Amino acid sequence: MWMSTLARVARPALQRSTSAVACQAGRACRRPGHAAGPLPSRPTLTHVRGQQTLVSASPPEARQTSAQARQLLITDLDIHSGIHSVEVINDNKVSVVWPDQHTSVFDAEWLKKRCFSSAARQSLQEELFLNERHHWDSELRIPTGDFQEVLRDDEAALAWLSALRRVGIVCLKGAPTERGQVARLAERIGYLRLTFYGHTWQVQDKHMANNLAYTSKKLSLHTDYPALHFSPGVQFVHCISQAVEGGESEMVDGFHMAELLQREDPEAHRTLTSTLVDFTDTGRDYCDFLLQSKKYIIEVDREGRVQRININHATRDSVLDLPVRQVQPFYRAMRAFADIMNRPENLLDYRMEPGDMLTFDNWRLLHGRKSYVTGPDSSRHLEGAYLDWDEVMSRLRILRKSVNKRA
Amino acid sequence: MWMSTLARVARPALQRSTSAVACQAGRACRRPGHAAGPLPSRPTLTHVRGQQTLVSASPPEARQTSAQARQLLITDLDIHSGIHSVEVINDNKVSVVWPDQHTSVFDAEWLKKRCFSSAARQSLQEELFLNERHHWDSELRIPTGDFQEVLRDDEAALAWLSALRRVGIVCLKGAPTERGQVARLAERIGYLRLTFYGHTWQVQDKHMANNLAYTSKKLSLHTDYPALHFSPGVQFVHCISQAVEGGESEMVDGFHMAELLQREDPEAHRTLTSTLVDFTDTGRDYCDFLLQSKKYIIEVDREGRVQRININHATRDSVLDLPVRQVQPFYRAMRAFADIMNRPENLLDYRMEPGDMLTFDNWRLLHGRKSYVTGPDSSRHLEGAYLDWDEVMSRLRILRKSVNKRA
Repeated sequence: MWMSTLARVARPALQRSTSAVACQAGRACRRPGHAAGPLPSRPTLTHVRGQQTLVSASPPEARQTSAQARQLLITDLDIHSGIHSVEVINDNKVSVVWPDQHTSVFDAEWLKKRCFSSAARQSLQEELFLNERHHWDSELRIPTGDFQEVLRDDEAALAWLSALRRVGIVCLKGAPTERGQVARLAERIGYLRLTFYGHTWQVQDKHMANNLAYTSKKLSLHTDYPALHFSPGVQFVHCISQAVEGGESEMVDGFHMAELLQREDPEAHRTLTSTLVDFTDTGRDYCDFLLQSKKYIIEVDREGRVQRININHATRDSVLDLPVRQVQPFYRAMRAFADIMNRPENLLDYRMEPGDMLTFDNWRLLHGRKSYVTGPDSSRHLEGAYLDWDEVMSRLRILRKSVNKRA
Repeated sequence: MWMSTLARVARPALQRSTSAVACQAGRACRRPGHAAGPLPSRPTLTHVRGQQTLVSASPPEARQTSAQARQLLITDLDIHSGIHSVEVINDNKVSVVWPDQHTSVFDAEWLKKRCFSSAARQSLQEELFLNERHHWDSELRIPTGDFQEVLRDDEAALAWLSALRRVGIVCLKGAPTERGQVARLAERIGYLRLTFYGHTWQVQDKHMANNLAYTSKKLSLHTDYPALHFSPGVQFVHCISQAVEGGESEMVDGFHMAELLQREDPEAHRTLTSTLVDFTDTGRDYCDFLLQSKKYIIEVDREGRVQRININHATRDSVLDLPVRQVQPFYRAMRAFADIMNRPENLLDYRMEPGDMLTFDNWRLLHGRKSYVTGPDSSRHLEGAYLDWDEVMSRLRILRKSVNKRA
């Protein structure tokens, strides 16, 4: 069960995560045999040398200060280098003298954070990427925030992005009911992602629509734009006006659904994580386009953790690059996945009101909408924009730094 | 050994590919038991129904014409559907009547192209994605084209993009020696990719550089921007002015090098295809940024085919997320890969002249430059831009259609 305000959802998780990092890294580095962090272990030496250090006596060619970039060439690196001597000096610094008498001075905290213990690594990775997700179902109360406050206040913006990452969806309330608000919000992050549908796109019932979304018909649960090999990571959708009848949004947590599928129908899960499916999109908007892509319906990493869902029946290609014996099992698996998603206990209904800005994880959520009725006096108008997770996470890390500094 | 004009490199390959498709698809579908393409085989029926067809009697809810999108819901699909009757009718059409008396009419060529035989599928995939690459070494004579002609003429543009895809690098000659030319060329494709370094970026020796490239120092072989999870697929670099001394470009075919590594040092290859490496990039340019990513140095698909190379020692993070026992093997593998790349027989030297526009595959090529001397009367100025392969391949497919139509 989810709390509905950003502050309650996002802040405690963030605080937990930060303190866990410090604690685990410290513990790991205080274990016997790890007294000075990774230093006494030979193989790590090839790693620490020539890195960006907070304080370092490295010769100028080992690093470039303003770009904070490593300059030592891999072809010049002695991978068998040992250490001549190590000592802890004043100000929590660790001084390393290498066999050629080159000296490097490291900040002890900086070294500790890079400890090779499994616990320290896990902590640091969680801090960098916030990979832990909170799964949900139809019971979710969508985390909400205030649009204007997020634009103005760093703490509110950080809470918004943290919840967006962990939960996958946040509704910002109170955006002016006119075009241009998705672009304003994207500027809060950095920049939006241009696609063939333009910088931002208008979801309306259009004559000669180049996309099913631009009609008044029902849209079944889908992720946007799998016809791009790198589909947009994040989507903003702003409700400028809503239909009088119909047009409700439906949403489902794709990561959670993939987990249910794996538990209930492992064979279908295996099929959808191992079958490359063709997508296509062709038409004209920002300019003319003819896209083709190949995607797994459920993309997992090598450890089997789900990374991305790619489902869009409107743009799944009529080309099916499978041996004939795999065709029916593939459709069976697709059907099994769709049936799980469409269970009432998994499906979240939401009716956007004018001024609502839904922000959600397009790699994770599937969304759809009910058909709606258009009339001379009623129109439905949403404006949307895409961003990518790299840019969103970059802003999240910068906000976290500035908010933590002030705290 | 490569020919140096676009026409000679790219066109024959293209013609071969097109005719091979028609021929193989035809042959596959004339084999006994495949007389009418995939139709008689039961499992395929679930596939053809509800697809976009050239001529179809499908009810309106099965497809949306202007968007060319499938509308049949997967939850409404009977995956065990059979066929009531099939017949070849006039005009090379195939008519299918389904058990519920719904009738679909398919263009026979359209069906043949979607034949499930291995040969037909391989052909069609090659036509869609042009995955066959021509590997090269220091002997490569870089394919060249004329900048103005590529902007003006569809056939020249198609030849350019086909060679860019197959060979990975093309030099366009005769671009005006002023800023704005990379953007003009990107518009020929569709649009460029905005990153934290801006819409386009100026490679010059800068005070307080936020990137090593913006100094006069040597740059070792690298791919651009692995700190983005989806690094830019294609790079345009335009030489506006060149240093009097130094500044030569170095390039290597990363896909070819990965193949050599696999042959010569399978263990190092295994390490670099299975170790996730952290990259980071932080600073301020278009806006402030703090990127983190995890990448394989050599990215392969599940069949082991190399998809992308990610090497950038300047932005490889000081964070190394590995158990300590894997650290030295990792550096050994990196060193082995670097040593192969830096062999004179693999390394291509090229001195850009003002007006040259290098266009290359940033997922495949590694590039570097020699240090150069700046003086009061000499400056070196390159302008660059990024694009993605999806957009480039989209333009290539559209150009191929229009050129083939005219032929």
